Amino acid sequence: MSASPPISFARGAPSLDIVAVDELRAAAARALERDPLGAFSYGTSVGYPPLREWIAEQHGVAPERVIVTNGSMQADAFLFQTLVDPGDVVVIEAPTYDRTLLSLQARDADLLAIPLEPDGIDTGALAEALEGGARPKLAHIIPNFHNPAGHTLSLEKRRLLLELAGAHGVTIFEDDPYVALRFEGERLPTLLSLDKTGSVVYASSFSKTVCPGIRVGYLVGAEALIARVKTLATNTYISPSMVAQAIVNEFCRSGAIDTSIATVKDALHARRDALTAALERELPDARFVAPEGGYFLWVDLPEGTDVAALATAAGERGVSFVKGTDFFIEGGENTHSGWPTRA
Amino acid sequence: MSASPPISFARGAPSLDIVAVDELRAAAARALERDPLGAFSYGTSVGYPPLREWIAEQHGVAPERVIVTNGSMQADAFLFQTLVDPGDVVVIEAPTYDRTLLSLQARDADLLAIPLEPDGIDTGALAEALEGGARPKLAHIIPNFHNPAGHTLSLEKRRLLLELAGAHGVTIFEDDPYVALRFEGERLPTLLSLDKTGSVVYASSFSKTVCPGIRVGYLVGAEALIARVKTLATNTYISPSMVAQAIVNEFCRSGAIDTSIATVKDALHARRDALTAALERELPDARFVAPEGGYFLWVDLPEGTDVAALATAAGERGVSFVKGTDFFIEGGENTHSGWPTRA
Repeated sequence: MSASPPISFARGAPSLDIVAVDELRAAAARALERDPLGAFSYGTSVGYPPLREWIAEQHGVAPERVIVTNGSMQADAFLFQTLVDPGDVVVIEAPTYDRTLLSLQARDADLLAIPLEPDGIDTGALAEALEGGARPKLAHIIPNFHNPAGHTLSLEKRRLLLELAGAHGVTIFEDDPYVALRFEGERLPTLLSLDKTGSVVYASSFSKTVCPGIRVGYLVGAEALIARVKTLATNTYISPSMVAQAIVNEFCRSGAIDTSIATVKDALHARRDALTAALERELPDARFVAPEGGYFLWVDLPEGTDVAALATAAGERGVSFVKGTDFFIEGGENTHSGWPTRA
Repeated sequence: MSASPPISFARGAPSLDIVAVDELRAAAARALERDPLGAFSYGTSVGYPPLREWIAEQHGVAPERVIVTNGSMQADAFLFQTLVDPGDVVVIEAPTYDRTLLSLQARDADLLAIPLEPDGIDTGALAEALEGGARPKLAHIIPNFHNPAGHTLSLEKRRLLLELAGAHGVTIFEDDPYVALRFEGERLPTLLSLDKTGSVVYASSFSKTVCPGIRVGYLVGAEALIARVKTLATNTYISPSMVAQAIVNEFCRSGAIDTSIATVKDALHARRDALTAALERELPDARFVAPEGGYFLWVDLPEGTDVAALATAAGERGVSFVKGTDFFIEGGENTHSGWPTRA
C-alpha cells in the first residue's frame, strides 16, 4: 500500500490549483458592485442579459437564440424534456458520457449507439442505419476531446454529419463543454457555425473555463426551440442564479477568462504528457490515442483484462478511474477511462 | 394618465431598497475568501454542506433530511417529479400560487381544490372529501401569509390537518417561503415540527430573506424521500450553485440575515398599512383581510365587477396587479390579488 495522496482519474473535475481563485473573487466584487439590481433581483429564465449577449457574440448569433442555465447538465435536461418523448430514437456515441446515458434512459428514449472512432462518430455506420430505416429525432455528439474517449470530430465528418442530419431531419445536439481546452492542433469550427439547415442545438458550460461550483451553462439553438425551453425553465425555477451569472459575465468581459483558459490548458497539457509517458513506460500493452485537449483519455487493455479487479486493486493504492463499461449501454468490458481513447 | 412611476402589485418580488446589498457583497467576499474549495469546486446535489447544516439546525433535524436547491421552485419541481404521477390526486388550496397550479397541471395531476378560509384551508371540506373516498397522495399547503390570499393557517387547523394526513396517508407539502416575514401576531409552529407520523415535507427559500437573484431554496423531509430527490437532482444538474450557497451560508451565519429580515418586515408592514388605508379610503366596497406578514393581500370587489377591464384600466395608469382568476383552476372572476385576502 502506498502512503502517497490519492490520485483520481475518475472525472473531469478541475482541481482548485487551476481555478483562477483571486480573479473570481475580484470578478464577484466588481459584479455585485456594478449591478446589484441585476444580480440580486428576480431575473427571467433566459438568464442574466449581459451574459446572454456575451455568449451570443461569441457564437455570432442573436441573443434570442441563447438561454443560460444552472450548468449545462440542466440545459441538457431541459432539452431532453423538450425534444425527447418515450420511445423516440436518439443517436448516441459509443462510448459516451455516462450522465447523458442515464438522462436519456430515464426518458425511456430508444438509444441507437453508433461507434466512436479516433476522428469522431462513425458516419458510415450512421448513414447505414439511416438508410436502413432508423428515424432518430436527435443525435448527441461531443465534438471536442470527447468524454470519455478524448477524440475530436474531424472537419470532414462534421460536414458529413450535417448533411446526414439535414437529409434525414435529425437534430444534432452538439455538447461542447471542452472546446476551449485545446492545447495542441487547430481549432475546428463548431457544427453550429457550419449548419445551414437549422439542424443544430449547441450546449456549453463555464465549468471548465471559470469553475464548476458556479454552475453556469447554456444552450444556443433555433429561436423557436429556445422559446420552448424558456417556458419550461420559467416553470421549473423562474430564473437561473443571477448572482452566479453576473460573476461569470464580469469574469468573461474583463478578460480573466482568457488567462484562466491559458492556465487550464497548460496544466492539462502537462498532465496528459505525464500520463501518456507513464502509460508507455509502465503499461506497454495499453493502447490509447493522446487527446489534443480536454480532460479525457481512454485506455484499451489487452483482451481478457479484468477491469473490475483492476479498479479494486487501484483503489486500494489510492488511484481511482472509471471503468469503460460505464460509458456503454452494453460491452466495454476490457476498456477503462480517466484519460481515455480507443484505437 | 398619471406621470407617476409605475406601481406593481403583481408579484412578491423584493425591491432592491429592501435587499441588504452591502451585507450581501461583504458576505460574498468573506465566503469566497474563506472556502474557495467549497465554493468553486463541483459539489454534490445535497448542497453546500455548511448551509445544509445551518438549515438542519434551524429546523432541529438531521442534515440528511435536508436538500438545498437552486431556489424553492426547483425544490417543488423535484418533489412533484418524485411523488406525483399522471392521474394522482393532489389537494390544492383555492386560490393558490399560480406557478404551483401550472407545475401540477404539467404533471397531469388530478387537482382536488379545497377552499381557503381566513384561518387556512377548510379542513371540514377536506375531511368530507376524504371520507367521501378521495385518495390524495399529496396536499399542497402554504401555511403563512398565503400567496395569493395573505391568510395564515391557525394552530388548531394545523393539528387537524396533520390528523387527517396521518389517518389517510396523505403527504403534506408545507410550502413556507414567507414564514420569517411576520410583522404582527405570534409565530406558529411549522407543520413539520408538529408532525409525529412523518407526513410532512417542508420547502422554503432565501428569496425573501436574502435576495431572489441568489436562487437558493431547500426541502426538509423524511430521509428516504430526500435520498430519492437527491438522486433526481444529481441526474439533473450534479449540484446546485455552490457559489450562491456559500454566500447565503455566510450571510446566515454572520447574522446579516437577522437585520435583513428586520428591514424587510418593517418595509412590508408600512406598505401593508399604506395599502389597507388607501383601500378603505378609496374603495370602501372592497373587502379584504389584512395579512399579518408577507407580501400578499387579496381583495374581493363587488359582485359583477369586470376585473379584466379593471386590470387594463389600471395598467394604463401604471398600476399592475394579478387577477384572482389566475389563482384558481376555475372561478375567481371578481377577485384580484396583489396584496390579497378573501373575507
